[in-house]
Amino acid sequence: MSEISIYRGNIVFSETEKKLAEYRDSYIVVEDGIVEGIYERVPDRYAGVPVADFGSDVIIPAFSDLHTHAPQYPQRGLKTDALLKEWLDKYTFPLEGRFSDPAFAEAAYDAFVDDLVANGTFHVVTFGTIHEQATGMLIEKLEKKGIYAYVGKVNMDENSPAYLCERTEESLLSTERFLEKYCGSRRAKPILTPRFAPTCSKKLLFGLGKLAKKYDVGTQTHLVESRWEAEEAKRLFPDCGCDTEIYEKAGLFESGLFVGAHFIFPSEEDIRLLSMCGGYAVQCPDATVNVIAGIMPTASLSARGIKIGLGSDVAAGQDVRVYSQVAKSVQLSKIKSFYEPENQVVTFAQAFFMATKQGGSLFGKTGSLAPGYAFDALVIGGLSDPFMPLSPVETVERFCCKGGPNNIRARFLGGKKIG
Amino acid sequence: MSEISIYRGNIVFSETEKKLAEYRDSYIVVEDGIVEGIYERVPDRYAGVPVADFGSDVIIPAFSDLHTHAPQYPQRGLKTDALLKEWLDKYTFPLEGRFSDPAFAEAAYDAFVDDLVANGTFHVVTFGTIHEQATGMLIEKLEKKGIYAYVGKVNMDENSPAYLCERTEESLLSTERFLEKYCGSRRAKPILTPRFAPTCSKKLLFGLGKLAKKYDVGTQTHLVESRWEAEEAKRLFPDCGCDTEIYEKAGLFESGLFVGAHFIFPSEEDIRLLSMCGGYAVQCPDATVNVIAGIMPTASLSARGIKIGLGSDVAAGQDVRVYSQVAKSVQLSKIKSFYEPENQVVTFAQAFFMATKQGGSLFGKTGSLAPGYAFDALVIGGLSDPFMPLSPVETVERFCCKGGPNNIRARFLGGKKIG
Repeated sequence: MSEISIYRGNIVFSETEKKLAEYRDSYIVVEDGIVEGIYERVPDRYAGVPVADFGSDVIIPAFSDLHTHAPQYPQRGLKTDALLKEWLDKYTFPLEGRFSDPAFAEAAYDAFVDDLVANGTFHVVTFGTIHEQATGMLIEKLEKKGIYAYVGKVNMDENSPAYLCERTEESLLSTERFLEKYCGSRRAKPILTPRFAPTCSKKLLFGLGKLAKKYDVGTQTHLVESRWEAEEAKRLFPDCGCDTEIYEKAGLFESGLFVGAHFIFPSEEDIRLLSMCGGYAVQCPDATVNVIAGIMPTASLSARGIKIGLGSDVAAGQDVRVYSQVAKSVQLSKIKSFYEPENQVVTFAQAFFMATKQGGSLFGKTGSLAPGYAFDALVIGGLSDPFMPLSPVETVERFCCKGGPNNIRARFLGGKKIG
Repeated sequence: MSEISIYRGNIVFSETEKKLAEYRDSYIVVEDGIVEGIYERVPDRYAGVPVADFGSDVIIPAFSDLHTHAPQYPQRGLKTDALLKEWLDKYTFPLEGRFSDPAFAEAAYDAFVDDLVANGTFHVVTFGTIHEQATGMLIEKLEKKGIYAYVGKVNMDENSPAYLCERTEESLLSTERFLEKYCGSRRAKPILTPRFAPTCSKKLLFGLGKLAKKYDVGTQTHLVESRWEAEEAKRLFPDCGCDTEIYEKAGLFESGLFVGAHFIFPSEEDIRLLSMCGGYAVQCPDATVNVIAGIMPTASLSARGIKIGLGSDVAAGQDVRVYSQVAKSVQLSKIKSFYEPENQVVTFAQAFFMATKQGGSLFGKTGSLAPGYAFDALVIGGLSDPFMPLSPVETVERFCCKGGPNNIRARFLGGKKIG
């Protein structure tokens, strides 16, 4: 016997990159956690199934955050006027150092995971720290909440502060233990996480490449994050023509899951390689402004077939809310088109697509409410003025522009109500 | 007998443009609505006065919003991917047209004023619409709540859609009736509001100049808002060398209160004139991105002595929250310095100063908590993690970066608890 649930309300999700589907006063039927269909009336075959009515509220897909740093969560919304080097050396690296203390990690990761749930992020790709134990706690907490996640124990063995700099062999051994322990997880899975080329030796990266093959595990890293990083990567890896090639050469493309955060100044070769491996580039609007390195050319990369998701990039970004990054992605595209007029403005529909259907595709059939997709969904409301009711799509736009967790009236993960 | 109140808590306000004053676990004494002093212990002369204890929460000055459009409030967070012309013609002008209906105006202005109070904006300079009756309702609602305000019946007699285009004489007569009726207001006062040079005839502007003199009333307008506007102003007023000169020539500088919103591409002459008349320029970070026209060079204007406040500019801006514009002013300065490296990054302290002490100076002694200032104040909290308590200044920064009305635990206006 399958389990059927029926919800009535307005429904909005991305049909394609450019088009939002909008169903008014409709019924969404969920069978064993999967969307079965959307109907104007309850089909006869479901007569007798109780209907939960969300009135004028809007049912949307839950959000996917493709790049964040869970351990930096305690630092969100602080030191936002610092520039990158000061921000890392004085604040962020010392904070990451504190995750050698399991009690601190426990408290910080509990707060982080609760905030994800409150804000409807049910799929996340996140960095941990170099600390195997603390990062294990993070993966276990996410798994327990049922969040779909890729979580990385960070690798860094060069150009890093002493308290975060690993010995190469130990970094690889620790990573293998981490993979062994968690590769069988159901929802929160491990991912290889070389911090970025400037902090990783060639030996470390090739060692990780062997682990990628042995455990069939993907990779996340910061990719072409700034002009400095792109140049430094080429200087440190002179036999690679671009940042992305470093990871390809190391064997880190082979599982097919590759997540490159930022990707702001990609060369033609970066674009070709990322596209070839089917990897994701991640725009992190707030972060990219706060540690200002430039603005990703989202519209043109997307037109060239690069899959782009959105990331909160806490704590360079100040908030776990992926939906606020939707609004800010549109804003950044306007700034970019002002300064570099060959860049097109991203529409709200395109930005919402990045945060849901596109980002969700990294995790399987989620991020949409079309039949066959997991019912990972949020019910949003409390956004209209009584004297000027909003359409369902307008409700979603205002939510992304200025909503908060109080506007999320219900949360469903795999069809089950949570939060 | 004077009325004394004492509050205990942490206290943060702008001492100067670059420096925040931070008092931990201190006592602020308020006498007849005015700050009398801040003390480590309650002075003997106040023994027996009860102390309201705000614990680890932080007392800060209330915010001043120097540029917004109350009638556009119903449009906040919508159509944010439209560009300026479409946004005005298709959405914003038709919405302003609806303020010919008093019932609609009543509902919209009630919601707007409630949102100001909820978000701690106790001083506001706002546009109304061309409609005398509706704008009168707005001024009365603000007065009733005790909000310090300058409210303008908009004037536009050229280059405007028919339903918003006034006949010159009628525009002036209507404005004079508006001034007559409200010039005696205690807190919410009228201000002349020619929309901007492209929608105002010379005859209208000079007529307003006469009213400015007769009623000793100030002026707000959009000033050097975009390259297009600056050029168009010079084309339409060929005997003026810059946008700002138009208002000077028309006699609109004489009361000493002049508010120029945006001021993004000022010429040397614009800067000289605005500085000479002691006027305010208003940065509206979200709005300036949403209807992208460029980024105000805040750091260099401020260094040249221009008084700069912040504005929410609803509904080009998506939210009435001035505090969120503090964080965004820092962000915009980073983007500007990235693209135009001669521009300096604005610190959090500088942006907070713009939103409080500098913006507040337009209304008198408010925007600070130093002795002699009105106790127009907010108590903020609920922003720290238990495992990593924040300093008072950090609390304020996080509030501006990601706080909401729920983080405002108490509101004081002229020493009285409200909201």
